[in-house]
Amino acid sequence: MKGLKEQILGSVRQDVDDIEVALTENLQPHLPLVSQVAKYIMFSGGKRIRPLLMVLSARLCGYKGDYDKTLSVVFEYLHAATLLHDDVVDDADVRRGNPVAHSIWGAPATVLVGDFLLARSIAIAAETDSVPIIDVLAHTTAQMSEGEIHQLLHRGDLATGETDYMEIIGRKTAFLIQSACRVGALLAEAPAEQVEALSEYGYSLGISFQMADDLLDYTADTAVLGKPIGTDLKEGKLTLPIICALQRATQEDRSRMEIIVRDTDVTEKDFEAVVELIRQYGGIEYTMERAQEHIDQAKKRLNIFEPSQTRTLLEQLADYVLVRQV
Amino acid sequence: MKGLKEQILGSVRQDVDDIEVALTENLQPHLPLVSQVAKYIMFSGGKRIRPLLMVLSARLCGYKGDYDKTLSVVFEYLHAATLLHDDVVDDADVRRGNPVAHSIWGAPATVLVGDFLLARSIAIAAETDSVPIIDVLAHTTAQMSEGEIHQLLHRGDLATGETDYMEIIGRKTAFLIQSACRVGALLAEAPAEQVEALSEYGYSLGISFQMADDLLDYTADTAVLGKPIGTDLKEGKLTLPIICALQRATQEDRSRMEIIVRDTDVTEKDFEAVVELIRQYGGIEYTMERAQEHIDQAKKRLNIFEPSQTRTLLEQLADYVLVRQV
Repeated sequence: MKGLKEQILGSVRQDVDDIEVALTENLQPHLPLVSQVAKYIMFSGGKRIRPLLMVLSARLCGYKGDYDKTLSVVFEYLHAATLLHDDVVDDADVRRGNPVAHSIWGAPATVLVGDFLLARSIAIAAETDSVPIIDVLAHTTAQMSEGEIHQLLHRGDLATGETDYMEIIGRKTAFLIQSACRVGALLAEAPAEQVEALSEYGYSLGISFQMADDLLDYTADTAVLGKPIGTDLKEGKLTLPIICALQRATQEDRSRMEIIVRDTDVTEKDFEAVVELIRQYGGIEYTMERAQEHIDQAKKRLNIFEPSQTRTLLEQLADYVLVRQV
Repeated sequence: MKGLKEQILGSVRQDVDDIEVALTENLQPHLPLVSQVAKYIMFSGGKRIRPLLMVLSARLCGYKGDYDKTLSVVFEYLHAATLLHDDVVDDADVRRGNPVAHSIWGAPATVLVGDFLLARSIAIAAETDSVPIIDVLAHTTAQMSEGEIHQLLHRGDLATGETDYMEIIGRKTAFLIQSACRVGALLAEAPAEQVEALSEYGYSLGISFQMADDLLDYTADTAVLGKPIGTDLKEGKLTLPIICALQRATQEDRSRMEIIVRDTDVTEKDFEAVVELIRQYGGIEYTMERAQEHIDQAKKRLNIFEPSQTRTLLEQLADYVLVRQV
C-alpha cells in the first residue's frame, strides 16, 4: 500500500510547501520564545493533514481566492496548542521521537504558548470577516477542551464504554478535522448541501483517524511511532481495542486486564499480556472494522460532488488514514 | 474614602446582579466538572470590574439593546481563564483566601477548563456577528498570553526596568480592561472618536489597576488581601516599587535587595527589610504617583462625553482603583 502514500504526496506537494511557508509567516509573535516553542511542536514531523483537508475542501467547492493557505494554518495552530496542553496534562515525556516541549521550556511557558496559538488562530479566522467561520472555530475549540476533560475524567475508569469512547474521540479529534473541511467549504461560499457533506466527510475521517491512532499504540513499532507503544494503557486511557476486549472477555480474563489497567507501573510483560488478550478477543479486528466503516461513510459523502482530481485525492486521503504507520 | 465604594456599589447593584446571572447562564458546558472549576474561580470574590466597564461603556455611548450583559461575561471568562492558567504557571497555593483550583482538581483539569473559558468567550463574541468585536477579543487574548510569557521570562531578572514592567502590565492586565471598554463602545456602534476615547480610558485605568495591585503586595494586610503579602517577591516578580528602589539605591543597598530577590526562600525578616528599603527610596510613593497620573489621564479621556450619571460612575470607578484595599 506504500504506493498510495507516494501518490498522495505527489499530488499535494505544492500545497504542503505553501502551507509550510504560511505556518511560519502567520505566527507573528512579539517574543522569540513563543516562536521557538511553537515551531518546535509544529516542525517536528506533522503531516499537515488538517490544513491540507481545509485547502482541498475549499478547492472541491470551487474556491478561487488566495486566503486558503493562510486560513489553513489555523488548524495546525489549534492542533499544536492541543498537543502542547495535552503533553502537560498527560505529563508525557516523548512526542514523535523528541522530548516534549515542557521538558525543555517548562510547563508554564508551554501552557502559555498553547494559549497564544489558540488566540492567534481566532485572530487569523477573524480576518476572513466571516462570522460562520469564526463561529465554527470557537465552538470547535470549546468542544476540544471538553473532550480532553472528558478523557481525563475517564482515565483508568474501567466502566468506559464504546459510547464514552466515541464521544471523547469525537470531541478531541474528529471535531477539528470536521471543522477544517467545513471551513474550507464555507470559505468557498459553497451551498449548504456541500458544506454539510464535507463536514460529515471530515467527522467520519476524524473518527477513523483517531481509531487508527489508538490501534497503533498497541500494534506499532516504537521506532516508527516515535514514542513507546502502550503509552495509552500506562496513562490509563481506555481506547476501543481494550474496551472491546474487556466487554467480550471471560470474568477471569477481564480481571487480569483490569489489574493491569489499574496498575500505575505497567511492565513490558504486563503490556504484552494485555495485547495478547486484546488480540484473542478480537479487539484489534473490531477496531479496524469500525474504522473502515467510518472511512466508507466518509467517502460516500463525497458522491454529491462531480468526479475530479480533488475528489479523488480526498478519497485517497481517507483510505490512507487506515494504512499509515505513524 | 469608604464612601466612594458605597456610592459606586449603590449605582451599579442592578448591573452587577444581572452580570452574575449572565455568568452562570452563558457557561453552557457539557461536563459538570467544567462548571465546578469555572464557578469556583469566578464566584470567589471577583468584583466584576471588567464586565461592568463593558456595560457602562456601552451605556455611555447610548447602547439601548439587550446583549450587553451577555457579552460582558466574556471579560470575566477571559480573566478567569488567565487566573486558572496563571496559578498553574506560578504554582500558587492561595488566591483570594481560598486554595487555588489546581490544588483541588489538579493542573490538567485546571488548564483545560481555562481553555474552555477562552473558547467559550470567543463563541459568545461571535454571536454579536461583529467582526471588529471578535477581532478585539482574539488580539487581546494573544497579547495576554504574550504578557504572561514576558513576565515569566523576566522572573528574577534584576535588569527588569520600568519599560519592561510597563510592557508586561500593559499586555497582562491593561489590554483586557481596554478591550472591555472598547467592545462596549463597539457594541453601541459608537463613532470612532468615542471608541478610541473609551479604549484609552480602559488602558490607563488598567495600568493603574495593576500598579495598585502590585503595591498591595507590599503594603496590604494578609487577612484583607486573601493571600500572603510578598508573594510577588517570592515568585521573583519585579514590580514597580522594587524596580524604582533598585534604581535609586546605593550600591550597598542594591546588593542587599538583590540577594533577597535572588533567594528562593524569602523569610519574613528578609521581606520586611526589602519593604523598608523600598519605602526609604520612595518606591511606594513613586508607584502611587505613576498610578495617579494614569487615573488622571483615564478620566480626562471621558471629557468628550456629555456629563451624565454614567460618565460620573466611570470617573468614580477610576478613582476607586487607587483606594481599594483588595
